[in-house]
Amino acid sequence: ARTGFAEVIYCSNKADEHLLNIFERLYREDGEVFGTRASQHQYELVKEKFPETEYDPISRILKVEKKDKKRIGKIAVCSAGTADIPVAEEAAQTAEYFGTNVERIYDVGVSGMHRLFSRLETIQSANCVIAVAGMEGALASVMGGLVSRPVIAVPTSVGYGASMHGLSALLTMINSCANGIAVVNIDNGYGAGYLATQINRLAAGTDEKGN
Amino acid sequence: ARTGFAEVIYCSNKADEHLLNIFERLYREDGEVFGTRASQHQYELVKEKFPETEYDPISRILKVEKKDKKRIGKIAVCSAGTADIPVAEEAAQTAEYFGTNVERIYDVGVSGMHRLFSRLETIQSANCVIAVAGMEGALASVMGGLVSRPVIAVPTSVGYGASMHGLSALLTMINSCANGIAVVNIDNGYGAGYLATQINRLAAGTDEKGN
Amino acid sequence: ARTGFAEVIYCSNKADEHLLNIFERLYREDGEVFGTRASQHQYELVKEKFPETEYDPISRILKVEKKDKKRIGKIAVCSAGTADIPVAEEAAQTAEYFGTNVERIYDVGVSGMHRLFSRLETIQSANCVIAVAGMEGALASVMGGLVSRPVIAVPTSVGYGASMHGLSALLTMINSCANGIAVVNIDNGYGAGYLATQINRLAAGTDEKGN
Amino acid sequence: ARTGFAEVIYCSNKADEHLLNIFERLYREDGEVFGTRASQHQYELVKEKFPETEYDPISRILKVEKKDKKRIGKIAVCSAGTADIPVAEEAAQTAEYFGTNVERIYDVGVSGMHRLFSRLETIQSANCVIAVAGMEGALASVMGGLVSRPVIAVPTSVGYGASMHGLSALLTMINSCANGIAVVNIDNGYGAGYLATQINRLAAGTDEKGN
Amino acid sequence: ARTGFAEVIYCSNKADEHLLNIFERLYREDGEVFGTRASQHQYELVKEKFPETEYDPISRILKVEKKDKKRIGKIAVCSAGTADIPVAEEAAQTAEYFGTNVERIYDVGVSGMHRLFSRLETIQSANCVIAVAGMEGALASVMGGLVSRPVIAVPTSVGYGASMHGLSALLTMINSCANGIAVVNIDNGYGAGYLATQINRLAAGTDEKGN
Amino acid sequence: ARTGFAEVIYCSNKADEHLLNIFERLYREDGEVFGTRASQHQYELVKEKFPETEYDPISRILKVEKKDKKRIGKIAVCSAGTADIPVAEEAAQTAEYFGTNVERIYDVGVSGMHRLFSRLETIQSANCVIAVAGMEGALASVMGGLVSRPVIAVPTSVGYGASMHGLSALLTMINSCANGIAVVNIDNGYGAGYLATQINRLAAGTDEKGN
Amino acid sequence: ARTGFAEVIYCSNKADEHLLNIFERLYREDGEVFGTRASQHQYELVKEKFPETEYDPISRILKVEKKDKKRIGKIAVCSAGTADIPVAEEAAQTAEYFGTNVERIYDVGVSGMHRLFSRLETIQSANCVIAVAGMEGALASVMGGLVSRPVIAVPTSVGYGASMHGLSALLTMINSCANGIAVVNIDNGYGAGYLATQINRLAAGTDEKGN
Amino acid sequence: ARTGFAEVIYCSNKADEHLLNIFERLYREDGEVFGTRASQHQYELVKEKFPETEYDPISRILKVEKKDKKRIGKIAVCSAGTADIPVAEEAAQTAEYFGTNVERIYDVGVSGMHRLFSRLETIQSANCVIAVAGMEGALASVMGGLVSRPVIAVPTSVGYGASMHGLSALLTMINSCANGIAVVNIDNGYGAGYLATQINRLAAGTDEKGN
Ligand SMILES: Nc1ncnc2c1ncn2[C@@H]1O[C@H](COP(=O)(O)O)[C@@H](O)[C@H]1O
Ligand SMILES: Nc1ncnc2c1ncn2[C@@H]1O[C@H](COP(=O)(O)O)[C@@H](O)[C@H]1O
Ligand SMILES: Nc1ncnc2c1ncn2[C@@H]1O[C@H](COP(=O)(O)O)[C@@H](O)[C@H]1O
Ligand SMILES: Nc1ncnc2c1ncn2[C@@H]1O[C@H](COP(=O)(O)O)[C@@H](O)[C@H]1O
Ligand SMILES: [Mg+2]
Ligand SMILES: [Mg+2]
Ligand SMILES: [Mg+2]
Ligand SMILES: [Mg+2]
Ligand SMILES: [Mg+2]
Ligand SMILES: [Mg+2]
Ligand SMILES: [Mg+2]
Ligand SMILES: [Mg+2]
Repeated sequence: ARTGFAEVIYCSNKADEHLLNIFERLYREDGEVFGTRASQHQYELVKEKFPETEYDPISRILKVEKKDKKRIGKIAVCSAGTADIPVAEEAAQTAEYFGTNVERIYDVGVSGMHRLFSRLETIQSANCVIAVAGMEGALASVMGGLVSRPVIAVPTSVGYGASMHGLSALLTMINSCANGIAVVNIDNGYGAGYLATQINRLAAGTDEKGN
Repeated sequence: ARTGFAEVIYCSNKADEHLLNIFERLYREDGEVFGTRASQHQYELVKEKFPETEYDPISRILKVEKKDKKRIGKIAVCSAGTADIPVAEEAAQTAEYFGTNVERIYDVGVSGMHRLFSRLETIQSANCVIAVAGMEGALASVMGGLVSRPVIAVPTSVGYGASMHGLSALLTMINSCANGIAVVNIDNGYGAGYLATQINRLAAGTDEKGN
Repeated sequence: ARTGFAEVIYCSNKADEHLLNIFERLYREDGEVFGTRASQHQYELVKEKFPETEYDPISRILKVEKKDKKRIGKIAVCSAGTADIPVAEEAAQTAEYFGTNVERIYDVGVSGMHRLFSRLETIQSANCVIAVAGMEGALASVMGGLVSRPVIAVPTSVGYGASMHGLSALLTMINSCANGIAVVNIDNGYGAGYLATQINRLAAGTDEKGN
Repeated sequence: ARTGFAEVIYCSNKADEHLLNIFERLYREDGEVFGTRASQHQYELVKEKFPETEYDPISRILKVEKKDKKRIGKIAVCSAGTADIPVAEEAAQTAEYFGTNVERIYDVGVSGMHRLFSRLETIQSANCVIAVAGMEGALASVMGGLVSRPVIAVPTSVGYGASMHGLSALLTMINSCANGIAVVNIDNGYGAGYLATQINRLAAGTDEKGN
Repeated sequence: ARTGFAEVIYCSNKADEHLLNIFERLYREDGEVFGTRASQHQYELVKEKFPETEYDPISRILKVEKKDKKRIGKIAVCSAGTADIPVAEEAAQTAEYFGTNVERIYDVGVSGMHRLFSRLETIQSANCVIAVAGMEGALASVMGGLVSRPVIAVPTSVGYGASMHGLSALLTMINSCANGIAVVNIDNGYGAGYLATQINRLAAGTDEKGN
Repeated sequence: ARTGFAEVIYCSNKADEHLLNIFERLYREDGEVFGTRASQHQYELVKEKFPETEYDPISRILKVEKKDKKRIGKIAVCSAGTADIPVAEEAAQTAEYFGTNVERIYDVGVSGMHRLFSRLETIQSANCVIAVAGMEGALASVMGGLVSRPVIAVPTSVGYGASMHGLSALLTMINSCANGIAVVNIDNGYGAGYLATQINRLAAGTDEKGN
Repeated sequence: ARTGFAEVIYCSNKADEHLLNIFERLYREDGEVFGTRASQHQYELVKEKFPETEYDPISRILKVEKKDKKRIGKIAVCSAGTADIPVAEEAAQTAEYFGTNVERIYDVGVSGMHRLFSRLETIQSANCVIAVAGMEGALASVMGGLVSRPVIAVPTSVGYGASMHGLSALLTMINSCANGIAVVNIDNGYGAGYLATQINRLAAGTDEKGN
Repeated sequence: ARTGFAEVIYCSNKADEHLLNIFERLYREDGEVFGTRASQHQYELVKEKFPETEYDPISRILKVEKKDKKRIGKIAVCSAGTADIPVAEEAAQTAEYFGTNVERIYDVGVSGMHRLFSRLETIQSANCVIAVAGMEGALASVMGGLVSRPVIAVPTSVGYGASMHGLSALLTMINSCANGIAVVNIDNGYGAGYLATQINRLAAGTDEKGN
């Protein structure tokens, strides 16, 4: 693609026939396909026709990926709790599909900050950091205070009561007193992985092409 | 008072005459008076009649206090930024007036967490901790993860844009993933100081009477 | 645990295998396990492997508890309506698991305040009071006016229409004109039971260890 | 008027000339005039032309009233705090102007409920009760639980932080678990006094005419 | 009951056994029982034990009612659309159960106002009017402008999009520029029927006893 | 202009020099100028340089208008209350400036609907109707039920309490059960006048040019 | 009908019997029937009795339409994404049923604006344009900047996270800086098609009758 | 500084003495100082002591800057309207102070998109783009669709009515359907300039040090 990013399928609520059509078109054009928010049913549907299709029930990513793709640079994907991992994985796998090396640092929320500190060097050496957190979303601020590269904050809908399906975490992140925090939509792991790839490519001096 | 807490005056918007009347009644009953949210004008008004009146323009507390009051136990009052100090001082001075020893640990927000860590022992030894923060209010969660006594979280109206005059910080604190966080209203330093005193008295085994 | 509080499992939405793994680890470490928001299905799953597991469908608490644990001090758990009892029980059983004596005073909302007054002495003698209420949540304010120890207010999602799933009750409690009200998240019985235990331990002079 | 209620002037933001014109027209039609939300300036303006005009700076009511008007029945107007009195007075004086006997019972909020109980008989004997409260607005629910006649709940904008200029009190009152609560807009003392008069007239068997 | 109103069961979400117990107790005490928000399943459950039980699937009211109860006075229950009828019927049948004569005037919303005008005389002769409307809820204002007795406004959750499950209609009604509008919670037909009965009794001079 | 609409100045908050510059440029280009939300000060500023400038303190419109401009078709501008007239006048004068004949029908809100009915024929004969209303904004729905041409609904910030500066009226209008209602932003008389002109031109068969 | 628009059935949640009754009545009166938000089940129900009934599962429109109806003028219906097509089709088919020629221009959102520009001439030649968009709803503003006829903006509930079921798109559209934008409720394709028809008739000089 | 970013002063609401102290400390440490949200009064205050201080009343930036600082790379700062320029300038000048070359492209909102297209090449050649917009904030989405580098979206509080002081623009940007959009707080030009500098440094291969 002109932007250096292949077209991606947002599978949620797509009708079977519609999904198959797009999948086939992209497969023909690019030789590989990447879909987000896919259901088990959609996996089975697509697999029948494209047996090399892979599906990860955690991130809900459905893909056919070319072998031996090169990855460049490095980003870190951090999550606050185990319940945030599906969104973190959507981010990590999106970035990897677009050619980025990814370090995963999960379950390092503010109630277990010692775990965060034990991985700090790895985090600080990444070209950018994705911080995924629900409930009150304080991880993004803490991260922003500890690293000097851009932090992409992803609020998640994890929580209950006054979390208002992620709105509270979003507000926390938007109001962060730390510098260098970029916020994306609630549960938007895909968007975070995309943005992190843009920044990582700039850092690696490879820009739009990713190679 | 039956509850071990003297009646307090909320000075904001009180008419001059009305304020003077209450002040006088309380002075006669208790020999001391404590008012919050007072203006410079109210200070001058009251001082004329009660020359021993003191006023702190930061916390906006107006008081006549008996000499040689004993203080017991210990609480810690922490603030994220310097702009949160007026609320922190309202909390600290309220607790002190009600007979509590107070440690002040200011400007220890998440963008300068090293300062927080350098004071950690003091904080952890308090009977309870008041965490005052505006903007995204992440301090309360960080504090909750580091201390095992109750943390009273006070959101402040410090911030702009999506801080919505403190509502964002309030939501952050209510949704905290850390355990042992008790939330009070936005800018309610008084309420935090009161609650901290209740807890400190229980810890000191002196309960309602404070002595 | 360092904090004097064992790790607890938040069972909601945990995958079967994941839940069994944590359960087993905690069982090995602590000899007892406590889980909140568990389903009947999760109970059956766990029970197969740990036959001494108990489950309470009201509070949705799943646990294996050591025999002959000592309890100290006393707290009171009050609920406004019968629909609030699941949250009240989550609070009460959490506190009991952590070693606190609990008095239950249910169905004492403002439309039946005579029932509240008939139990007032018991309530006033507790080290702290948990007030659980949905709809308009006025119970917390009433309670705050009647007792001089800390009141932990738990808004519940009980109600309909403008109750907005508990947000109205939360706002009522945060804005309370009574002193000494500490608010936690909507339906967060666990958090209230934890906080009450912290306070009760301080009052009992046993602090972090609970014994 | 056809409805048994004279036309009333809402003075807020009315231009001087405009106000004088309406005042004059109503004076000519009815021989008396009633205006709400009037400023001191508007009082002086009107008084110059209609020297018998009276103004109450608390309720901000501006009026010329006929002598010897009869009042019927009885309503009770209760307020939670002293800061709610301006709204309570708007309600009380509106009802009086429309021919209703009014009992005032002020400063009986939930943190001083003994005062409320000491006046309970008076309250229970009224044809209907107006409950005026800001902050968390719990007074309406408490009142609804104690009286069996209609309770008109008036939220006020008194409070700060999460009171959101009266929205919290409004939500409390709309969600009340007590029966027989009718809610009007924030600070709408006039509307409450009008509604109470309608009910009082029905109770007194005099209906629309008020005599 | 002391208030002249029998205790009523809010059936929604009540466990079978719990419902049967309350039903039985009330049947023994009062010889009749009234339940709202009941399901078809709850009807069958109760009917087995109390074969004289009646159930209306529209209003979802479940009851055993004494024969030959007298009704007094008159109220009017108006609805804007056909989708609002369940709430209107909850209001109407509640008022009837408590001894009030009810006129039903349905489907008279602002897009068919001629139907409203053709019934105006009936509406104006009622002791009070209940206006039930969803979507934008304009019926309450229109009604308030046409009748001089109290109008009880019931917003409903009928609508979609920006109706926000009834909040928009609630706001419309609370802000009404018409006089004499009393608002209750979204979908709260029961509360409206209760309040209307209180007013109707006052008008009929029979007050609390309803006879 | 290509669109048939001259460029307009939104004067609010414009610096003096900046305003004069734009004014001068437009005057040179078009021979006439139209500004909205202008202050008295801005009028005096502009008048000094362009003595033929006119200013209407009600609508706050500042203009130099060519003589003998032709107007076509007809629209009706209706307002609910007198406080809504500034917004109604912004709409009416905008439409007139753009060449539309305007009928003004003010103070016809739902509490005085007889006045509305007495002007109905005029309203129904317009090519489109602008309905301007604050508080609960019910006028738009009533109008939509009575006319079969498009109704442009303009919520205003008139009101207090739960009117939330016009948001309540906006929601009322967006949720209207009547057909053919087009909503614009709160207080956006200009936008309504523009849209009405577009429709009026289409109806008059003159389209973009307005002549 | 008097308004030139036949009565339409809003099928959502209508009981079977009720739906059949209205369908039959309208069929008898008009010889054709149009229903929106119909389910597959309702289609089968109606088809049994009226075998000529057609159903479109995308728009969920259920209808019996007279043959050889004439269409006049032209409007354009544009959608941002494929997920917005159901709402766009509700708009398009409503307008067609009421006698309007419709151009469909789908999938022209701001991330693929070249597609929009390639159809611009068609769009600019329509009497009015309907812009259907979810997520951030920017299409309406872009469209408003490009065409000089009225743009009817329809926010959709497509999106997730902070889209708040369409409220974000609604706010975007209401705040549009472009001129000539008329907003309707979220997902209200029907309302947009109705309004567009009103405008198209005026432009075609055929007004209420549509012929 | 460790992060490669000097400490910055947020001047808003700082007391005179407090501001002077920080200014002096930073001046001594860094030889230059940068303050945002400064008032004219603060400028005069500081200038007296540090005569080389510069102040820009548009961006409200107050600074002493070293001569001959090198700038690297390139970013583009775009604004939708002229009213958004203060925020855009805060962003641009912040980035410049931190050593970034900045292209300014102002007044290119969606109602004048041709101006945007005429500058497209410049925009697309920047390492990252800052899009500043109030009202409905559509510029960010349009920009995201046109450039393949990261877009930092800054909502502004410009607008009225339903713009809710910038919340609408914030929501628009967070929900953008375009890829590669990073959102910061309302009016947070400083934060955008900081983040853009981080990205620009990575692209220029100079990272934290900026040289
Ligand atoms: N999980 C996701 N969240 C947000 N946007 C996505 C996601 N996955 C894909 N997208 C975007 O949606 C576009 C495809 O949308 P669609 O045409 O509806 O399949 C992709 O090109 C991406 O820009
Ligand atoms: N019902 C509950 N509500 C809120 N927090 C809980 C609840 N139950 C457990 N927790 C907290 O969640 C932590 C476990 O979360 P997780 O690792 O996701 O199982 C516990 O250590 C508690 O701090
Ligand atoms: N009162 C108003 N409300 C909304 N938009 C307006 C108003 N007056 C003028 N406008 C629009 O604002 C544009 C001028 O904006 P500006 O360039 O900031 O002066 C005009 O061309 C109109 O599109
Ligand atoms: N999809 C729709 N969205 C909004 N209003 C609709 C829709 N379909 C029909 N209507 C309106 O609803 C009316 C019928 O409502 P009802 O009497 O409840 O069937 C029609 O006359 C239309 O005015
Ligand atoms: Mg940082
Ligand atoms: Mg802790
Ligand atoms: Mg108390
Ligand atoms: Mg009662
Ligand atoms: Mg009336
Ligand atoms: Mg119409
Ligand atoms: Mg246009
Ligand atoms: Mg892009």
